[in-house]
Amino acid sequence: MPYVWQTAGPGEPLQRQEVEPLTPGPGELVLEVLHSGLCHSDLSMLDNAWGMSSYPLVAGHEAVGRVAAVGDGVDPAHIGQLRGLGWFAGSCGHCFQCLAGRANLCRSTEATIVGRAGAFASEVKARQDWAIPLPEDLPVADAGPLFCGGITVFAPLMDEAVSPTSRVAVIGVGGLGHLALQFCRAWGCEVTALTTNLAKADEARALGAHRVVPLAELAGEAGRFDLIINTANQPLDWAAVIAALAPLGRLHQLGAVLEPMTVNAFDLIVSRRMITGSPTSSPASLLKMVEFCSRHAIRPMVEHLPMARINEAIERLHRGDVRYRFVLDGPA
Amino acid sequence: MPYVWQTAGPGEPLQRQEVEPLTPGPGELVLEVLHSGLCHSDLSMLDNAWGMSSYPLVAGHEAVGRVAAVGDGVDPAHIGQLRGLGWFAGSCGHCFQCLAGRANLCRSTEATIVGRAGAFASEVKARQDWAIPLPEDLPVADAGPLFCGGITVFAPLMDEAVSPTSRVAVIGVGGLGHLALQFCRAWGCEVTALTTNLAKADEARALGAHRVVPLAELAGEAGRFDLIINTANQPLDWAAVIAALAPLGRLHQLGAVLEPMTVNAFDLIVSRRMITGSPTSSPASLLKMVEFCSRHAIRPMVEHLPMARINEAIERLHRGDVRYRFVLDGPA
Repeated sequence: MPYVWQTAGPGEPLQRQEVEPLTPGPGELVLEVLHSGLCHSDLSMLDNAWGMSSYPLVAGHEAVGRVAAVGDGVDPAHIGQLRGLGWFAGSCGHCFQCLAGRANLCRSTEATIVGRAGAFASEVKARQDWAIPLPEDLPVADAGPLFCGGITVFAPLMDEAVSPTSRVAVIGVGGLGHLALQFCRAWGCEVTALTTNLAKADEARALGAHRVVPLAELAGEAGRFDLIINTANQPLDWAAVIAALAPLGRLHQLGAVLEPMTVNAFDLIVSRRMITGSPTSSPASLLKMVEFCSRHAIRPMVEHLPMARINEAIERLHRGDVRYRFVLDGPA
Repeated sequence: MPYVWQTAGPGEPLQRQEVEPLTPGPGELVLEVLHSGLCHSDLSMLDNAWGMSSYPLVAGHEAVGRVAAVGDGVDPAHIGQLRGLGWFAGSCGHCFQCLAGRANLCRSTEATIVGRAGAFASEVKARQDWAIPLPEDLPVADAGPLFCGGITVFAPLMDEAVSPTSRVAVIGVGGLGHLALQFCRAWGCEVTALTTNLAKADEARALGAHRVVPLAELAGEAGRFDLIINTANQPLDWAAVIAALAPLGRLHQLGAVLEPMTVNAFDLIVSRRMITGSPTSSPASLLKMVEFCSRHAIRPMVEHLPMARINEAIERLHRGDVRYRFVLDGPA
C-alpha cells in the first residue's frame, strides 16, 4: 500500500499515512521514490512560512526514483528508468515562457509540494519533462539534492551564460553553497567563499574555493567580483555586498530573505552593477546540469537517514545540524 | 579673452570670469563652445548635492563646439570639426574597462565638470575620443543634450542589447524621459510612458509613447514590461514597479535617487527579474547614438537662452519650468 509522510498543520510532526496508488494522467509519470532530499524550502512549506501551505501537507522535492507507471502519450519504454525530480513537477507547455525554453517561469507551473503531494512518500507524480533521466555515473542515492539545491545554484551560471573568466563569490557554505562552490570551480572561475563560519574554511577549499574570506571582511574585497551568488537568507549589509562587485558585476539573490533589501541606486548606476535572482531553472538546464555533474564529479555531500526518521532530520535541519543535506531513504 | 561662468559656492549665482586660454595636452583638443545644455546634474554639482564639488566651479557638460586647437598626437585636420561633449571628457585608455570598450567604467575617467572647468564657458578641453563628431544632419544648436541626457537613456537599450520585441516603460517625461520615449519608439519596442503629470500625455504620445499610464495606476500593469527605464529621482513604490516587470524583466535605474530603494528578494527570484543601472556610456555607444539620432530624426526639445542668462535658466530648472532642456548659446 503506498504511503505518504504528512503533517496536519504548521509545526506538527509528520505521520505515516497509507494512501491510494497514484494514477498518472496524460503526459505524466509516477516515480517510485528511492531517495528524497530535505531542503530548507520543505521546512518553510511545512511551517507555512510563505503563507501558501494547505494541510495535510506532504513535502519533499529532491527526489530520485524509478518510473513505475506512465500516462497517455508517455512512452512506456520509460518504465524502469531512474529519474530526478525537483521543485517543479509540471508546467503548461504552451505559454510563451514554456515555448521559449523557460518553463520554470510559466505561470501555470505545478510546484511538487504546493497543492499536491511531494516526495516524502513511496511514490510521486510528475509531468514527464520535469522528471530528469539520471546519467549512469551519478550516484543514485546522493543525487536528489541536485534537483532543487543543485539547479538553484547552477542556474545563475548556466542561464546567464557566466564567463569562466569571472571572479565569483559564494555567500554561505551550506546546502546551496557547498554545491555552488563545486559548480563555480568546475565552471573555470576564480572562486571565493564568503562565510561567517571560518570553521568551514578547509571544507570550502576542498569543495573548490580558491579563497575563503570572512563576511565581516568584505570591505577589503571592494570592486572584486563579477558575480556574487548569495545563498544566505538573512539580511546582509547590502551596501557592502554591492560595493564588492566589479564594474558590470552582478549580485544574484537565491536566499529568500523576507526583509526587504536596501539598495542605493547610485551604487548600481556608477558601475553598471546588477541585482538578479532566479527560481531553480528549466528542464533543459536540468539536463545540462546532470551532464555537467557527471563530467566534473560534482556531488552533494549528504547524510542518509531512513524515511521513518524524517522528523529527526527536520528537527536537526531546523538547528542547522547537517553537512550539508539530509537524504531520506525509502521505502521505509 | 576666454571666459567661464563660475560659481563661488553652493547656491551662489554664476558670474562671468575672464580666464587664460586653454592649452590642449597630448591627446586632447579644445572646443570653442557654441551651445551648452543645462542638465539636472549641473544643479547637483553647483549645489554640492553629491559632496564632490570644489569651488569656484564651472558646470556645463552637454556641449556642442568647434575644434579650435589640438594637442600632440591629435590630427590637426580635426580643427574646425563640430563635436559634442558630455559627462566624461577623458579616461585612461589603457585599463581593462577602456580596452574592453567600456571607457565610461574606467576608474580614471575625467568628468567634464568634476575638478575641472566645464562648458559654461567660451571653450572646453577634452580627450579626443570623448568629443564625438556630429553627423551633418543633426541640428547643431539642439544637439548638446544628446551627449549627457541622450546617451544616458540610449545606454540601457544599446549596451544591454534590448530586443525590439520588448515592451518598454519609461518613468518620467522630462529631460531624460522625453528622449527615452523617442529612442524606445525608434528601437521598435512597445512604448509606455508612466507619468504623474497627465497634462503631458499628448506630448508623450507625440514623442513616441503608444500608451500613457498614470504612475498611480501601475498595479494594473503587473507583469507587463520587459524593461522599465526609470528617469525619476524621487523614491517610488519599488514593489509596485518591480511587480510591473514581466519574467526576465529589468528595472533600469537612471535617476540618482538618494534614499535607498527597498527590494523584496522574492520578487526578483520568482520571475528572474533584474535591477540594473548605468552611467552614460562609452565613446563607441556615443558614436552609434548620434548615427541613430540622424537616421530616426531624434531631437532634444529645447529652449534656447543666451549664456548671459544662465542664472535665469538655473532658477527655472530648479522649479522644473522647462520643456525639456535649456540650451545656453555662446559666445555671450
